[in-house]
Amino acid sequence: MATVAAAPAATEVKADYEALCKKLKEVSALGGISGLLGWDELTMMPPGSADARAAQKAALAGVLHEKQTDAELGELLRRLQAANLEAAELGPYERATVREAARDYKKVTAVTKEMAQREAELESEGYQAWVKARQESNFAAFAPVLQEWLALRRQKAALVDASRPVYDVLLDDFEKGMTAARLDEIFGQVKEGLVPLLADLRARGKAPSDAWLKGDYDTDKQAELCNKVAVVLGFDLEKGRLDVSVHPFTGGSHPTDVRMTTRFKKDDLTEGITGAIHETGHSLYEQGRNQQYDGLPVNEALGMGVHESQSLLWERMVALSQPFSAFLLPLLREHFPSLPADKNPEDLYAALNIVKHPSDSSMIRVEADEVTYPLHIIIRYELEKALLEGKIAVDDLPKLWNQKMKEYLGCEPESDARGVLQDVHWSAGALGYFPTYSLGAMYACQLFKAAQVDLPTLDADIAAGNFAPLKAWLNEKVHKVGSLHPSGDELMKAVTGAPLDPQIFLDYLQQKYTKLYQL
Amino acid sequence: MATVAAAPAATEVKADYEALCKKLKEVSALGGISGLLGWDELTMMPPGSADARAAQKAALAGVLHEKQTDAELGELLRRLQAANLEAAELGPYERATVREAARDYKKVTAVTKEMAQREAELESEGYQAWVKARQESNFAAFAPVLQEWLALRRQKAALVDASRPVYDVLLDDFEKGMTAARLDEIFGQVKEGLVPLLADLRARGKAPSDAWLKGDYDTDKQAELCNKVAVVLGFDLEKGRLDVSVHPFTGGSHPTDVRMTTRFKKDDLTEGITGAIHETGHSLYEQGRNQQYDGLPVNEALGMGVHESQSLLWERMVALSQPFSAFLLPLLREHFPSLPADKNPEDLYAALNIVKHPSDSSMIRVEADEVTYPLHIIIRYELEKALLEGKIAVDDLPKLWNQKMKEYLGCEPESDARGVLQDVHWSAGALGYFPTYSLGAMYACQLFKAAQVDLPTLDADIAAGNFAPLKAWLNEKVHKVGSLHPSGDELMKAVTGAPLDPQIFLDYLQQKYTKLYQL
Repeated sequence: MATVAAAPAATEVKADYEALCKKLKEVSALGGISGLLGWDELTMMPPGSADARAAQKAALAGVLHEKQTDAELGELLRRLQAANLEAAELGPYERATVREAARDYKKVTAVTKEMAQREAELESEGYQAWVKARQESNFAAFAPVLQEWLALRRQKAALVDASRPVYDVLLDDFEKGMTAARLDEIFGQVKEGLVPLLADLRARGKAPSDAWLKGDYDTDKQAELCNKVAVVLGFDLEKGRLDVSVHPFTGGSHPTDVRMTTRFKKDDLTEGITGAIHETGHSLYEQGRNQQYDGLPVNEALGMGVHESQSLLWERMVALSQPFSAFLLPLLREHFPSLPADKNPEDLYAALNIVKHPSDSSMIRVEADEVTYPLHIIIRYELEKALLEGKIAVDDLPKLWNQKMKEYLGCEPESDARGVLQDVHWSAGALGYFPTYSLGAMYACQLFKAAQVDLPTLDADIAAGNFAPLKAWLNEKVHKVGSLHPSGDELMKAVTGAPLDPQIFLDYLQQKYTKLYQL
Repeated sequence: MATVAAAPAATEVKADYEALCKKLKEVSALGGISGLLGWDELTMMPPGSADARAAQKAALAGVLHEKQTDAELGELLRRLQAANLEAAELGPYERATVREAARDYKKVTAVTKEMAQREAELESEGYQAWVKARQESNFAAFAPVLQEWLALRRQKAALVDASRPVYDVLLDDFEKGMTAARLDEIFGQVKEGLVPLLADLRARGKAPSDAWLKGDYDTDKQAELCNKVAVVLGFDLEKGRLDVSVHPFTGGSHPTDVRMTTRFKKDDLTEGITGAIHETGHSLYEQGRNQQYDGLPVNEALGMGVHESQSLLWERMVALSQPFSAFLLPLLREHFPSLPADKNPEDLYAALNIVKHPSDSSMIRVEADEVTYPLHIIIRYELEKALLEGKIAVDDLPKLWNQKMKEYLGCEPESDARGVLQDVHWSAGALGYFPTYSLGAMYACQLFKAAQVDLPTLDADIAAGNFAPLKAWLNEKVHKVGSLHPSGDELMKAVTGAPLDPQIFLDYLQQKYTKLYQL
């Protein structure tokens, strides 16, 4: 006699959903602890405790893995994915929670324990090898690490989803919903717009001067200023703290416990400020998350690209804008009275927006400006994708790297240390990560344009130091929405009415720099 | 056919031991994380994150409980306890690891999940009730909490070991190997010696003056001085850090990550210094633990009494001694040049050693001196034991409290807030904890006497600011030994040749104060 399973009653579905949430919140709480350990390690931990901390992190990672791969969790997800969630009155956020949790579960259970262990080992080994190779400017010493990462990543992609291109599967870890095909389209358009703009700026442009900003600036005073700016932008000290670290970052354990760090150089005033504003953007996203869905995947950041869009929106669209200079200059003067009295906000705006010249540090990504930055990213994207697809060989990388640098950025690094070895990411197997930097810049531009429409007094507000309207807009449109949407494009559609459009970004750069460089 | 199980081969025993260690080290690492969370909460955490932190702590506590009650762990312990460990060439530290782990396992598995949950709830409820009751000086509002704790603790003791007196079972959580019978003996002797000494000091003694030490002292300067002293005593900044918190404590995540805090009052120079030296003593114990047995129970502190002995040895035997005043006075002058120039180390020594008068704060335990302190502890011990044994009623506690205060300390608190409600411990169910404070004081005295024999130049070294020999002695005799011995008495026997002898403590006080008070 054949039996037909009856559809589960709405109450059972709801009970499953509640049971799922309980498990997910436990994972989230443990993940928060992991975040705190990371922050502590970079800010507070005494140096002699590195080994003990490694053991603590390994123990916690093991526990997290056990909880994330819990068979009961898998069974709940299986039942919920088969059920009619809408009939059980589960709303869009609840359904997105099931979708995101299932996605995470599939990924984390796909990788074998042996692979996970080898990956963890190779992260350490790779880092050591990279440090040494870069010191010696010897790519051959790093090549075997990259070779093994490529093999491991292909293997992982096949386990997670053998039906999709390798790069798409990897990309999904950092920027869900994104594909290489879509990136080819986006980056193709960006390259086509930026390469000639850059050439034009260099050939005909009149670079502004920032010589008057050079000087000697007490780092305590810089920190005081930056903390003040972070709070004015909206950083909530009830739900976070500000510290100093070797590399600035935003971490912490929870949206109510966001820990942001900055660093300061005595001879560079702008790096500290722009860095602090960048991290404030990340922090506002974290602090702005929706506490109604606390501890659930739907309340996580949508992805690295959108996270970066929040830091870059504040760093570039706000802090590098004309109105912001009107706000910033008096503050700078207050903290550093030695600044020349004859400079006005226009001078500050110009000084903050200088496109790197090939003769200076334009070959280093982390020192790049908003015009050259995407070209660095596109080089890395094109090369890492070709590597994963087996279209180019690891050994040919330095040569290909330098060719692309010449072609896109008009300069050739004098050594592999300052070329193909300049970034740490590949040593940790982060393949598919670089594109998020530039996607973030483009999301930021498109979001800011939409904000300008919704907030007609935005420019005047920024000049007056009133950032609350923009923060509230981002809270509502982006931060609280979390991972409701399955991709950055969907978020863009919901907020701006259209998927990511690189032309908005290109137009912004074209207009801004045409004027600044008097083309 | 009868079968006889063959004794497990030495290799099997060793394999079991290794498997045991792996599990224990995981528990230890997770416990270290828990320590870090606690430190962070009291020093760094933004206030708005309290709820999230509570969830994180609960999640971690749940994981720790799962790992501590793991059936595989129990099976390994069962086999190892039945095996011949010596035949498998497991040395005394390895055997102590098995002993301690089995002891912990028995305790943690004895309590039901429901009980553990109710205990966790009652800790919070009890704290709230205590704060309110103390504010209103209303013991009746706190009585129900204490009543429930007594019931829960009796129930727990019966589950852990029904064959032993309730108080002994509870005591074991804080001071293993100690019994109420032994405490009756020790505290009886102490009471007999101290009550007349105190009466004598008050009737005939000439109290030294500390009026010249009163003043206004910048707290940053105090912190600077105390950090300097902590480092001179031996605190290793490579394996720890010093911060400021509302209540001073020593915590951290590992012997290589010891986090000590201090606090300072503008109008009280001595409290900050003695507090810092007290915490330094705890810290030196932690930093001095034996890394060869890292992560194993044998490497834990022996108990609360021995831990307190390390803080009190440095605070009382060292910092309140004559030679230390010779070291300290020039340092004080360096940081606070306003101190009267005519005072000498003898004056400082006298000012630091004043026995509280009944008219001032002698009814508050945490403000007590080394003479009156043990009497506070004995009152609490006698009352909490009688409560657990059902010999007195909770409702009679304020009356009994005041009677004992009058009898032992010669003063009666003017309110329950400053009497029976003054301490937080009972609100969290800490019954059996108070005795460790005074056991610590007596261990400290006995250990220091042994150190004086082993280190003939100890007094001169202390006066000269050379604390390395004493620290090295404690490292070897106490810190590295960890939990090798099953009780404080056994440790005392190993280090000093005899179990704890209260007469050493009484003689020390008698001699010191007879001279100071010119009896």
